Amino acid sequence: MSSTNFTIYYGSLVNPETLTSYHAILHCLLAVNPHGNIEWVVRDVPDSMVQATLLEQGCPDAEVVELKDGQFLMPGFVDTHTHAPQVPNLGSGQQYELLEWLKNLTFPMEAKFRDTEFARRTYQSVVHRIINQGTTTCCYYGTLHLDATKELANIVYSLGQRAFVGKCNMDRNSEDYYIEPSWQSSINDTKALISHIQSFPPSPSGISLVKPILTPRFAITCTSPLLSSLGELAASDPSLHIQTHISENLAEIEFTKSLFPDQESYAAVYDHFGLLRDNTVLAHAVHLNKDEIELIAERKSGISHCPTSNFNLNSGVAPIGQYLDKGIKVGLGTDVSGGFSPSILSCIRNASIASKVVAMQNRGRNNHDHHLENGNALGHCKFADTQLSIATLLYLATLGGAEVCMLSDQVGSFVPGKSFDAIIVDVRDTAGNPAMWDFKADTHDLTGQDALRGMLQRFLFCGDDRNISDVFVQGRRIGGKA
Amino acid sequence: MSSTNFTIYYGSLVNPETLTSYHAILHCLLAVNPHGNIEWVVRDVPDSMVQATLLEQGCPDAEVVELKDGQFLMPGFVDTHTHAPQVPNLGSGQQYELLEWLKNLTFPMEAKFRDTEFARRTYQSVVHRIINQGTTTCCYYGTLHLDATKELANIVYSLGQRAFVGKCNMDRNSEDYYIEPSWQSSINDTKALISHIQSFPPSPSGISLVKPILTPRFAITCTSPLLSSLGELAASDPSLHIQTHISENLAEIEFTKSLFPDQESYAAVYDHFGLLRDNTVLAHAVHLNKDEIELIAERKSGISHCPTSNFNLNSGVAPIGQYLDKGIKVGLGTDVSGGFSPSILSCIRNASIASKVVAMQNRGRNNHDHHLENGNALGHCKFADTQLSIATLLYLATLGGAEVCMLSDQVGSFVPGKSFDAIIVDVRDTAGNPAMWDFKADTHDLTGQDALRGMLQRFLFCGDDRNISDVFVQGRRIGGKA
Ligand SMILES: [Zn+2]
Ligand SMILES: [Zn+2]
Repeated sequence: MSSTNFTIYYGSLVNPETLTSYHAILHCLLAVNPHGNIEWVVRDVPDSMVQATLLEQGCPDAEVVELKDGQFLMPGFVDTHTHAPQVPNLGSGQQYELLEWLKNLTFPMEAKFRDTEFARRTYQSVVHRIINQGTTTCCYYGTLHLDATKELANIVYSLGQRAFVGKCNMDRNSEDYYIEPSWQSSINDTKALISHIQSFPPSPSGISLVKPILTPRFAITCTSPLLSSLGELAASDPSLHIQTHISENLAEIEFTKSLFPDQESYAAVYDHFGLLRDNTVLAHAVHLNKDEIELIAERKSGISHCPTSNFNLNSGVAPIGQYLDKGIKVGLGTDVSGGFSPSILSCIRNASIASKVVAMQNRGRNNHDHHLENGNALGHCKFADTQLSIATLLYLATLGGAEVCMLSDQVGSFVPGKSFDAIIVDVRDTAGNPAMWDFKADTHDLTGQDALRGMLQRFLFCGDDRNISDVFVQGRRIGGKA
Repeated sequence: MSSTNFTIYYGSLVNPETLTSYHAILHCLLAVNPHGNIEWVVRDVPDSMVQATLLEQGCPDAEVVELKDGQFLMPGFVDTHTHAPQVPNLGSGQQYELLEWLKNLTFPMEAKFRDTEFARRTYQSVVHRIINQGTTTCCYYGTLHLDATKELANIVYSLGQRAFVGKCNMDRNSEDYYIEPSWQSSINDTKALISHIQSFPPSPSGISLVKPILTPRFAITCTSPLLSSLGELAASDPSLHIQTHISENLAEIEFTKSLFPDQESYAAVYDHFGLLRDNTVLAHAVHLNKDEIELIAERKSGISHCPTSNFNLNSGVAPIGQYLDKGIKVGLGTDVSGGFSPSILSCIRNASIASKVVAMQNRGRNNHDHHLENGNALGHCKFADTQLSIATLLYLATLGGAEVCMLSDQVGSFVPGKSFDAIIVDVRDTAGNPAMWDFKADTHDLTGQDALRGMLQRFLFCGDDRNISDVFVQGRRIGGKA
């Protein structure tokens, strides 16, 4: 590989490391090779040593992109749960809870996507917007329509985002105008979508950025024959990803139990049909019981935490700290339009709030001491009952999401050999977001790494799309401001 | 008054009415007279009848500002609690609770404002930003510095925002580098600020947009002689407004009780010194006991609900529904930088979330039936235990805030005789906010008033400064996009 085709980024860099730590690195040189992978990273290179370092690394002629003061590189966001056809409903329906919200607002909108031309036009705008929020990897639910969901996959592919795209399976308990005619046709359409997506040519480096994902909407809308056939399909290809909803809302849980009286729990339903495995993404998980938590941990399935949606639809507050303590993989999901924002930044803020609400509730119950005792004694109760730190929030939004998607060897942090999926964040006044105060020298005494950590925190809590200058997937710039 | 100098707005209009209802009016003509007051409003005027209506109203030559489809007029936001000198700290310090946050982050920043030149430069940018968030009336805390706070008042005055500006009183329990030398100097500086602000020439219509406000920071930082003197000052002028913090955080409450062992409660401390009256703004009120709620209701003081801050600093969740049921006036406050956003829109979203958290907690306690029973029997339990509706959120952000500021006869809704304090909201794609989906005909089946109600909801949950085209105070355009 010719090192003259490398692109070198020079500047500040934020890199998630563990659930409780991240690196804030100044004067970093990061090289992206022509395949879009990170070739090497060198830290602490002063201005005066940049050329010498490039020479030493064997690429004296490489293009160098120099970040400005007030800019930094970080891994792109991973949105582990969203519904592309619901983006036009953003900000509507906060008066409903889940089942009424589906009936009155969501199914009517999704039904419009039977018009493939409408789907193409709408999805084009939808995917653009999501990319410009800094989301480099996205788990998409389409509608139940094969053709519309093919359009979604085509658009994601052509725009260059890394994504999983699934067609909803739903052959019961929906409205007459929005339901699949049979479990057989649901399976056939699913297979057709999988073939369609798997036929996309891979990137020049041999990577398939867009992948199919089995998407039984939730147990309520799937008959046993349908779930059983999806389980068989999954068994036939262990690399096929699966996404669904679980335990979002109390009424939903009751209804699910009534539909599957032989199963011990909601999670047991999915497990019974072979749908709980290491590449399963479970959205919400607000009201899991202890056995379900154990089962999910055992199956190594991932949880998509959707706090904006959980607040908005009055679903509850997911005890994410408990899941992290159990070693369950957790990522964040916008769950548009249950959530009212397509941005993982809003999700980070609401995940912070959700963790504080859990901490307040436990404080109210006065069982903090009890937990501390147990936790410290057993050495694994680090997250339950406490607020999520900046390091944890950053992790969930990037590397945690990558783990949920079984992509953590490929994206979510800057490590040589991984893909360059990244955003350039710009916290300067010139970025145009008045709710973000520039890190001016006369208001701030922080310097060096502390200043960079301050900028990250500001971005997570005050930033919006205007603070995202560039969005890269597999080394290619696919979005960002202007 | 010559009607030829009227400005007429023609288009859609959203108008809060009560805590549970608002008007969404299409094809409205609203006339603003040269004093900046609303002269008349005529509803349901079709395009073809605009000229005839103007003729009928006696102003055939008036300038007509025609709103576009996707734009609407609504009252400007009232921010009943914010700290101008903390704006540079936006998005920092979410790891702290109140007392640590003051010590480590807030007092060091506020101390910088002893440099009056720095204060002028910083406040200029601060007030600009707040105006462009659509805030037409704002209750500002300055620092403890007289000169810096004069600068803040000067800037607010010159930019034309309606506001209350106060200098913090704090003569104990702060850091050595940020504390007033004596209660006498605190009072003298307070009087000097009041004289300074009261010397501003009123607007052409005789209205003083900027008013002084007594600002004992909170009981912890004020000695009894200081509170006592502030009470005397207040007694000498019943029109003088008062703002302070109350019952934000459990550690703060304990500390307050230890400082005033003779008083029965936190609220009783302020009442003892004559500081609880109808023009008192009490920020937070998260953990009030029943007696305090009764006392505040009796004194007709207003509460500034600051949910973003209360979540962020882990303070708790204020039971706003209970206060509304008691007939207590409630407005919203951003409480920057306890809150991480200068926008009342963020505050609306978090007030919605806070009310849902309260509802969830009560559902958890299974006492919903009990409350319903009591409430319906007594006929006044409309808000406790339920989520705040769009109508209520709108009310709190506008007319409720105006009530807290004793300005509801002047601003907060569109009524002839009131001032024209308004924003023009723009929910179209061209506004440039990708997180807001345009109300396109092909995605939405709503028409007429329902469509307008849909646009309002989208704006409240997805909007940002880019969706605010114009900001008017007393008829004059003082901000907005470009
Ligand atoms: Zn969902
Ligand atoms: Zn405050």
